[in-house]
Amino acid sequence: MDAPVNLQAALASFDQIYSPRIVARVNDYDVRIAHTGGEHVWHVHEDTDEFFLVLDGRFDIALRDADGAERTVTLHTGEVFVVPRGTTHKPSSPGGAILMFEPTGTSSTGDHHDGDLPGHVESTIGHQL
Amino acid sequence: MDAPVNLQAALASFDQIYSPRIVARVNDYDVRIAHTGGEHVWHVHEDTDEFFLVLDGRFDIALRDADGAERTVTLHTGEVFVVPRGTTHKPSSPGGAILMFEPTGTSSTGDHHDGDLPGHVESTIGHQL
Repeated sequence: MDAPVNLQAALASFDQIYSPRIVARVNDYDVRIAHTGGEHVWHVHEDTDEFFLVLDGRFDIALRDADGAERTVTLHTGEVFVVPRGTTHKPSSPGGAILMFEPTGTSSTGDHHDGDLPGHVESTIGHQL
Repeated sequence: MDAPVNLQAALASFDQIYSPRIVARVNDYDVRIAHTGGEHVWHVHEDTDEFFLVLDGRFDIALRDADGAERTVTLHTGEVFVVPRGTTHKPSSPGGAILMFEPTGTSSTGDHHDGDLPGHVESTIGHQL
């Protein structure tokens, strides 16, 4: 990366929902951004934590504990949260945008997920901006 | 981390310049925030890239290449940049705030730095928020 990337300009360069773009590489980690909207899918990353920063709008993360109990964390613009490795979670959003930090190659739908993928949720390790 | 962290509220909880606070841990990486102002120090991280996101204001990063030639990258709010490992650099800012991703334990003044540390620049691996 020779020049800075403006996150709002980067977000304006695509409009697909839940289709992360890689804006930077940091060692063996990616910084990804995505537009959010509607229900994602319950999924789990067994081997990595996942960092979220809300860039715009609102982003909810439902979390399922080992006993199957669920709670939802609500994030607004400028708020950050980390989903610990091994925690099954389901993002949802009335609309917005997020920045994520996770190891290069991490799938957007985890190592496994519940049921079929909704049509608007892509399984990807991120696209180049 | 059980609850989201609001970055503006976190920034408002301290006022020291160039004194990073750790807002989240992601695997063996820290997410740190800092207030910026004035000249930092020329320094280098030999073994890690360093990610910057400007949260407020302006942040300049002077970069020195292997031949000793210098250039400066200017970042405004909402812009990101990665300083590659092994690149000697010196941040400066007329005032602002940044978010950084880097491996836990990374020193804010690198593996080595030029000359004496200015009084307003702390050498730290980050403080808990």
